[in-house]
Amino acid sequence: MAFRGVRGLLFDISGVMYEGGSSGPVAVPGSVDAVRRVHEAGLPLRFCTNESQTTRVILATKLQGLGFDICSEDILSPAPAVCRILRERSLRPHLLVYPDALPEYHGIDLRDPNCVVIGDAAKYFTYDRLNEAFQLLLKLPQPLLFCLGKGKYYKETDGLKLDVGAFTCALEYACNIKAEVVGKPSPAFFTAAVQELQLEPCQVAMIGDDLVGDVGGAQNCGLLGILVRTGKFRPEDEHHPSVTPHTVVDDLSAAVSLILQE
Amino acid sequence: MAFRGVRGLLFDISGVMYEGGSSGPVAVPGSVDAVRRVHEAGLPLRFCTNESQTTRVILATKLQGLGFDICSEDILSPAPAVCRILRERSLRPHLLVYPDALPEYHGIDLRDPNCVVIGDAAKYFTYDRLNEAFQLLLKLPQPLLFCLGKGKYYKETDGLKLDVGAFTCALEYACNIKAEVVGKPSPAFFTAAVQELQLEPCQVAMIGDDLVGDVGGAQNCGLLGILVRTGKFRPEDEHHPSVTPHTVVDDLSAAVSLILQE
Repeated sequence: MAFRGVRGLLFDISGVMYEGGSSGPVAVPGSVDAVRRVHEAGLPLRFCTNESQTTRVILATKLQGLGFDICSEDILSPAPAVCRILRERSLRPHLLVYPDALPEYHGIDLRDPNCVVIGDAAKYFTYDRLNEAFQLLLKLPQPLLFCLGKGKYYKETDGLKLDVGAFTCALEYACNIKAEVVGKPSPAFFTAAVQELQLEPCQVAMIGDDLVGDVGGAQNCGLLGILVRTGKFRPEDEHHPSVTPHTVVDDLSAAVSLILQE
Repeated sequence: MAFRGVRGLLFDISGVMYEGGSSGPVAVPGSVDAVRRVHEAGLPLRFCTNESQTTRVILATKLQGLGFDICSEDILSPAPAVCRILRERSLRPHLLVYPDALPEYHGIDLRDPNCVVIGDAAKYFTYDRLNEAFQLLLKLPQPLLFCLGKGKYYKETDGLKLDVGAFTCALEYACNIKAEVVGKPSPAFFTAAVQELQLEPCQVAMIGDDLVGDVGGAQNCGLLGILVRTGKFRPEDEHHPSVTPHTVVDDLSAAVSLILQE
């Protein structure tokens, strides 16, 4: 059984550990306990999210408030990954991101931008802001666009919402370019996560509610991919033409039970 | 010489006949006279636009105000074309369009929508409106999206602006579908325009400022494609990897002189 060899875990956060409720976020039943059980079993665990609307510190605080044993250093998100890339390549970004996420870019030179970073700006995806990013890209001799994940949509209290991937496609089409994806499902992101765990890909299972971004992305890098039936999961996901999870379980708690062979 | 056989003409409107000025639209120099010369020469002429922000009547009135001899019946635009399709296929659209264009959809049943029509909504491309269209598409058993043209961008007084094609790509990606393009560069649109002129495709020249949408689209249907260096034209357009116009001229007046062998 494939899961016997699992020595480390990656959990997606939104839709797996918590969901939006009418009066704020609510932990998915059993998920606080699931995180505790993984810690008690001594399995290394990281939280692998494409969240780009806020900082890791604020996100960790929110999750702690829901009862999770989690610290911000254990959260792997696209913002610090893109900051590494920007520094390595001496790039100065124009940021099309959610204002709450700006502290993640502290120390990054934003003057005279020579690339665009697009995150999940949600309601800040206005026509004017999109045009601003578009006009900058079209002015650059080598238009360079980094997207923080390439998610299609995510679930909010009032329904599914367009994610950064959709707006990335809009800019890609208008500028005739391909964005560099930072975050899930980019192989570099999963590879860095596996290295953090000091394991081999085949020893790591990714548990997520995004069939393509979480499960497919992890499987493409040699990890195991487990889909949960919470968050943005849709029944159609169990019959996808190109992505087949190693298994599909009801929720994070069931996934952890399977891994821990309880 | 290819242009000797031309017996009818299609003119793009925006960027070819007029451009945005700081105090409103301004006719491209020589273009009012160019339209007059075509009429005097007795060549059938239609105005072939992807304009979807307004009605043909309002557009014709605006052009008449600039001095053009034009009537609304001679304007071929995507809105009436999509209305024909909606009626033929008994479809009820959700309209993601610019409010000024709504009169074009008079008589179309908008209740309980089973498809989405996306036009150039410009500033009405808000996050909420895009999500509304997205959520409807995702609820349909067979998501069906019609886009009124698939332009990448157009030129406004204050710079290039994202066109309907970019926002169509956003919805296509999020919903994992391909939109049906109504308008340029769809072959059905050019074919209908040629039929209106009662000519063969090889007898018709399309004159436009959009290399891919106007020139490439026309050429794909067997028409001649002439690019003008006004409107959204960019010098890079003269060295495009896949589209090569039959000729590139400075403006509409020069194109008409070429056709009329003046």
